[in-house]
Amino acid sequence: MSTVHDNVVNGFGGSPSRLDGRPVGRPADQDPLDRGRYPLDPWRLVETEFRTDDLGRVESLFSVGNGYLGLRGNLEEGRDAFAHGTFVNGFHETWSIRHAEEAYGFARVGQTLVNAPDAKLIKLYVDDEPLLLTNADLPEYERVLDFRTGILERCLIWRTPSGKRVRVRSTRQVSPADRHLAMITLEVTVLDADAPLVISSQVLNRQDGEDEYHIPSEAMGDDPRKAARFEERVLQPDVVHGDDGRLMLGYRCTNSQMTLGVGAYHEIATACSYTAETHAEDDVAQTVFQVEATAGEPILVTKFVSYHTSRSVPAAELVDRCRRTLDRAQRRGRAAVEAEQREWLESFWERSDVQVRGQPAIQQALRWNLFHLAQAGARVDGSGIPAKGVTGSGYSGHYFWDTEIFVAPFWTYTTPSIARNLARFRYSMLGAARARAAELNHPGALYPWRTINGQEASAYYAAGTAQYHINADVVYAVNQYVRATGDIEFLDREGIDLIVETARMWTDLGFWRENGDDTFHVHGVTGPDEYTTVVNDNLFTNLMARFNLRRAASYVRDLAERCPAAYGRMAVRLGLDPSELDEWERAAEAMVIPFDEHLGIHPQDAHFLEREVWDLPNTPAERRPLLLYYHPLVIYRFQVLKQADVVLALFLHSDEFTLEQKRADFDYYDPITTGDSTLSAPVQAVVAAEVGYADTALDYYYRALFVDLADLHGNTSDGVHVASNGGTWYATVFGFGGVRDCNGELSLDPRLPRTWDGLTFRLTWHGSRLRVDLTPGALVLDVEDGSSVSLTVRGRPVEVAAGQPVRMAMDTHGRDQSGAPESPALSGERREDGTVMTATVPTP
Amino acid sequence: MSTVHDNVVNGFGGSPSRLDGRPVGRPADQDPLDRGRYPLDPWRLVETEFRTDDLGRVESLFSVGNGYLGLRGNLEEGRDAFAHGTFVNGFHETWSIRHAEEAYGFARVGQTLVNAPDAKLIKLYVDDEPLLLTNADLPEYERVLDFRTGILERCLIWRTPSGKRVRVRSTRQVSPADRHLAMITLEVTVLDADAPLVISSQVLNRQDGEDEYHIPSEAMGDDPRKAARFEERVLQPDVVHGDDGRLMLGYRCTNSQMTLGVGAYHEIATACSYTAETHAEDDVAQTVFQVEATAGEPILVTKFVSYHTSRSVPAAELVDRCRRTLDRAQRRGRAAVEAEQREWLESFWERSDVQVRGQPAIQQALRWNLFHLAQAGARVDGSGIPAKGVTGSGYSGHYFWDTEIFVAPFWTYTTPSIARNLARFRYSMLGAARARAAELNHPGALYPWRTINGQEASAYYAAGTAQYHINADVVYAVNQYVRATGDIEFLDREGIDLIVETARMWTDLGFWRENGDDTFHVHGVTGPDEYTTVVNDNLFTNLMARFNLRRAASYVRDLAERCPAAYGRMAVRLGLDPSELDEWERAAEAMVIPFDEHLGIHPQDAHFLEREVWDLPNTPAERRPLLLYYHPLVIYRFQVLKQADVVLALFLHSDEFTLEQKRADFDYYDPITTGDSTLSAPVQAVVAAEVGYADTALDYYYRALFVDLADLHGNTSDGVHVASNGGTWYATVFGFGGVRDCNGELSLDPRLPRTWDGLTFRLTWHGSRLRVDLTPGALVLDVEDGSSVSLTVRGRPVEVAAGQPVRMAMDTHGRDQSGAPESPALSGERREDGTVMTATVPTP
Repeated sequence: MSTVHDNVVNGFGGSPSRLDGRPVGRPADQDPLDRGRYPLDPWRLVETEFRTDDLGRVESLFSVGNGYLGLRGNLEEGRDAFAHGTFVNGFHETWSIRHAEEAYGFARVGQTLVNAPDAKLIKLYVDDEPLLLTNADLPEYERVLDFRTGILERCLIWRTPSGKRVRVRSTRQVSPADRHLAMITLEVTVLDADAPLVISSQVLNRQDGEDEYHIPSEAMGDDPRKAARFEERVLQPDVVHGDDGRLMLGYRCTNSQMTLGVGAYHEIATACSYTAETHAEDDVAQTVFQVEATAGEPILVTKFVSYHTSRSVPAAELVDRCRRTLDRAQRRGRAAVEAEQREWLESFWERSDVQVRGQPAIQQALRWNLFHLAQAGARVDGSGIPAKGVTGSGYSGHYFWDTEIFVAPFWTYTTPSIARNLARFRYSMLGAARARAAELNHPGALYPWRTINGQEASAYYAAGTAQYHINADVVYAVNQYVRATGDIEFLDREGIDLIVETARMWTDLGFWRENGDDTFHVHGVTGPDEYTTVVNDNLFTNLMARFNLRRAASYVRDLAERCPAAYGRMAVRLGLDPSELDEWERAAEAMVIPFDEHLGIHPQDAHFLEREVWDLPNTPAERRPLLLYYHPLVIYRFQVLKQADVVLALFLHSDEFTLEQKRADFDYYDPITTGDSTLSAPVQAVVAAEVGYADTALDYYYRALFVDLADLHGNTSDGVHVASNGGTWYATVFGFGGVRDCNGELSLDPRLPRTWDGLTFRLTWHGSRLRVDLTPGALVLDVEDGSSVSLTVRGRPVEVAAGQPVRMAMDTHGRDQSGAPESPALSGERREDGTVMTATVPTP
Repeated sequence: MSTVHDNVVNGFGGSPSRLDGRPVGRPADQDPLDRGRYPLDPWRLVETEFRTDDLGRVESLFSVGNGYLGLRGNLEEGRDAFAHGTFVNGFHETWSIRHAEEAYGFARVGQTLVNAPDAKLIKLYVDDEPLLLTNADLPEYERVLDFRTGILERCLIWRTPSGKRVRVRSTRQVSPADRHLAMITLEVTVLDADAPLVISSQVLNRQDGEDEYHIPSEAMGDDPRKAARFEERVLQPDVVHGDDGRLMLGYRCTNSQMTLGVGAYHEIATACSYTAETHAEDDVAQTVFQVEATAGEPILVTKFVSYHTSRSVPAAELVDRCRRTLDRAQRRGRAAVEAEQREWLESFWERSDVQVRGQPAIQQALRWNLFHLAQAGARVDGSGIPAKGVTGSGYSGHYFWDTEIFVAPFWTYTTPSIARNLARFRYSMLGAARARAAELNHPGALYPWRTINGQEASAYYAAGTAQYHINADVVYAVNQYVRATGDIEFLDREGIDLIVETARMWTDLGFWRENGDDTFHVHGVTGPDEYTTVVNDNLFTNLMARFNLRRAASYVRDLAERCPAAYGRMAVRLGLDPSELDEWERAAEAMVIPFDEHLGIHPQDAHFLEREVWDLPNTPAERRPLLLYYHPLVIYRFQVLKQADVVLALFLHSDEFTLEQKRADFDYYDPITTGDSTLSAPVQAVVAAEVGYADTALDYYYRALFVDLADLHGNTSDGVHVASNGGTWYATVFGFGGVRDCNGELSLDPRLPRTWDGLTFRLTWHGSRLRVDLTPGALVLDVEDGSSVSLTVRGRPVEVAAGQPVRMAMDTHGRDQSGAPESPALSGERREDGTVMTATVPTP
């Protein structure tokens, strides 16, 4: 490692990166999916072949959820799985974090998403032979996730060991209209001959019960990105009831004392004769239908499922709520539930759809990403959005800054009501954030780096608690929401407290240096890049802190002027002294923003350029991601990035950098950015597009689009990367659309990729929906809903009135710039099957 | 915390520090011990009153041991205790370290000293009433630890509940001559009337068995300095045997698979009639004597005890070894065992005694410290010296750099054979150190920060693994040993491998910066000060690394010249290329040594001076030590030291700094050094003495001398601070004696404290023993043993021939310098009882 480097990056140029001697093409030139197995389809993810070698990935891809409740794409029959998963956002167990060596202030309360009782399970037996996909003879098979209906549907024909053919059609959906409701159907038809048939529908506690089959936990190894496991019982049974096709279970978590009720009602429709039996125990409840199936006669079982959870309500009451949800659903019937969901999604797509013309693979992948945004965010209501949504247990179901920086923009610009919920979710945590600040000897509030219940759960402070920027990330999202919607009422009543309290933390964390130029410094923090920790004056952090301080001062001054009474209440509530505003402004003005005159770039932190440069081109592919193969002390010594850091600042604070600075910074950082975090590619795509590296932008865009679909980071099995879902949206809109919203002003500077025939997206701005249409030669703006919208296009003010589309002839491709750096994150090993572009790894 | 400081230390001046408004005198002006309870005695620690309020401290102070085996000063009768402890150096259990968040390269194998079966236990019943000191009526009581006999003796008279007076005299000792042997006696005489009497002598497994009484583990809280506890059985019984007054038990550790045999033989001598019964179970074996005691007739029970341990030998064989040890001891008899021990200690004191004339409190405390050095080091043989020796379980019985930097000098200069063993102990770990280097992607060897079995056990890398200086610390001690003894044979055959392999790590860890001046840098390391971690170019580390590199190159070149054959074998063995020597020398020459021209001081690291200065004068006493009240991220942001860092470098590399530099550095660092580590005070004493701050030196000296005796850091209950024991010796000899040994040359520059009538100490140098006598007006040098010794006295060469003492008239007080800084570690709160100077805290 002791090679001779000092601020030298040229070493990364030269011929295209090769690994194992095999040349690797540009990601954007390749189709990362096997289209035989996953045919192109603009509105659906279709799987035509059942395979057992990548169950984990497929379970995540075919998850259904509504942000509150999520069901992994496990097989209806149970058994073979990477991980059976049913998740209720925020429903967690706590545990005492034992540090191998303790220290004051270390996180104490571990929080882990619970694997909620599994109600997806419906086993099928024909002639007493179970349907098990792993070894079943399946002459026909198709699984479809439909982005417009929200229904996961599987159709197959099973040739039983005795030679009978059985058609099995099943559906699964989680309602965005009624967040406590899911619906599952199973339709079985024996085609050739009569047969005795058993359908066993269950609710199974997998968190504590013996699982039927799973990948041995040793296989999880020491990957820090996996969820913690429990050694003792988590769910204590409280209600156990089964009768008349109705299964009702209630549990209480041993430590967190959170409660859960789950219920399932069954309907059967068939001309065949049958019996039904229902039985419930602590960890499993089931309704068993025994049917004398007649050839050609379908048997349809409909299973309505409901979950309710709480921090305080007894489980018995939650079970009652489940009953009411189920009664109502049963009264309305299957068709109504499906129709409500379709309507919700229609409205969602109306506000949110993005069309990429002439690029069917991108179109499908993008809609899959947007659909998963809906599934992760539709009904989070009072919670945050976990790193994996409700599709897996990765990162223990914790909320990170992902929510604010990578996901919230989508909601702010398509469904502001959900963005408002996300802002209020952070407001609801303000008490815990105040307590954490006090624990770390600060006034004000310090948000936890990762949490479910508001308490810091990051047990590794260097890449956790030290990321103080979380405070400003929250404010950034709140500000973006307020500016895009004009929802000043939320700001005045609640948002202001959050902004003031976070600002107070910054002036205390930072300090003044009287060294002639009276500068304000923030030491001992970690920026977004987790391969460089606990540094002084991290550029990203200082910029965000400055933003936080300025917003606090300006919002408070504005409130004082606009509404003295509200200001007075706030000042009393927060004990605010007017001199604090001056302090915030002084600190913001004097905030150090590192800049290296010699290189003409912004160092990531005060001493970043003094580090050795990691020799990425000579780091073997099998030693990636670095975090799994090098001790943190080794990684931290070098100039090497897990993810965009300065480059993210270039995007979030676009108006504070010149184009030349952006290009110089991108040129410097891109070759030393591993992209070992999935949060990196979309950011790099946006900035590459802005500085004119069109091919590079498209390559990073592919990396974001296909992170999960092609499992580019090898851990989609733990759940979908929700931040990356959001990243695909903003890489499209902010990257290729060139949208910016600095200082509350909407602007456009399109950079339509040359390989695209056109791009259409929508933005909701102050209650109006603006449609943006890009073709190679023109930009068309149209207010689809609401009143007129003002914006600038490449600096030119434009007013778009309702019903009066504005068409602007222009070269929408934007600037071209040669000399894009060789990006190590874009090279990689081609897999044996040729289907996947590369194989490095990620994080949220 | 965001106060306005930039390299400002003047704020610490002014009036003497006060806490709670009570003025605090100079430590050296106070006697820290209650002389009513602990009367002055030059050769013994005497306790005249039994109290239960500080059992833990007293158990540690009255421990007996020989470096291999240690018995805490627990009461013979068991029951009331802070912690019952019997320790065999290196006898440990392993456990899998579970990090709350895992990362590559984190320590995996936890290692914890086992509480070995307790053979100290002898319970006494008179008229079936147990003797329990806590509530016993004790008209007479005395406990004495004699530094010349090595025997702990307790004499008391007990008035039983029925009014009978019973004289109880007991002794306890661990043999330095036979490291597997301990001996315990109990002599009971009923004074007034006959009485039935029961003596139950036991061997009790306290590690797994139910302890009789102990401080609840909750009381241990989250203090990171405590040992880990086990939840499952540690000692698996293998041999269980009891017969005829002989108790034999054999165990195997569940995980580490280490084995232990323990045995006890009993003799009883009395004119009274008695019966004896012996019985053994898995966790307890006992011999019970029932005696018809006659008034005035003594009953003497002698218990010979033996321990053997191994990494591989079956427990049964170890039990056989115990039998042989015990057979031999019994044959020789009690008097012979006592005589052997007395002889060993006579010889020890002949080589090691230090006399401080006119200061009886210092004299006693100093001898207590030296005696505990003997108890910690006498028979470590192939092991290291744990932070608490064999007196407690603090720091889990791990070996740290304490051994090399704080304890080894004593042995090198008094009993070189023990220093050789310590060097060979590190040599024996070279394989593990190579493996650890490879794990951290380095060639060569990297010693673990803390360990028993050679594997890194530090689970907190920032203050553990990052202390790469351990590599050079080991080399420093080896070099000091070789230079002081001339033991070139050890160097050529074994030491050279260790020196070469550690050097290789340094050139790889560091790197070249081509910034005009071609400097060599070492980034991402932690120096001795654990309140500042993972920094660039830590001065101490870089100096030590340079030393390591230079020594490696010069020793190898010397070997090549002196003995080409040995060089050739080594070169093959280590795959050494001659160009490596050039690389080491180049790196050493170019090694960056931070210096600030403006302040004229050596910054602790490249960016130390950019930090805020911690406001120690305004930090409340109840928030000390800082580590227990502030998150590491908070502490690390500031200029505040746990312990001497640059100041330690000033001492260890005394010839590389001018006197002016030393004074400037001391002036800068002393006011920001908390002394929260016990490793700090002796170092500060040495450097204060050198720069002429005589009072300050004496104050720090008191802090070191009385760390345990007065429990100044509040955790002596966990065991004696062995590094501080060593620190008292070198503070005396290097500090007030002014001894230095730079570049293999012995020099003297006396600084006798003005309050002392005289100081006499011995140094063993190349096989000769030099006595150094200091009185206010003269220095007398005398070779007590061996041939002539050459040295310099205040720069003047002196040759001292055997039998020809050299007397030099001189002002032995040394230079005086006013303006000593106000030292926060020397102020503190006076306790209620007025007996203890202050109350801050420590670490090794």
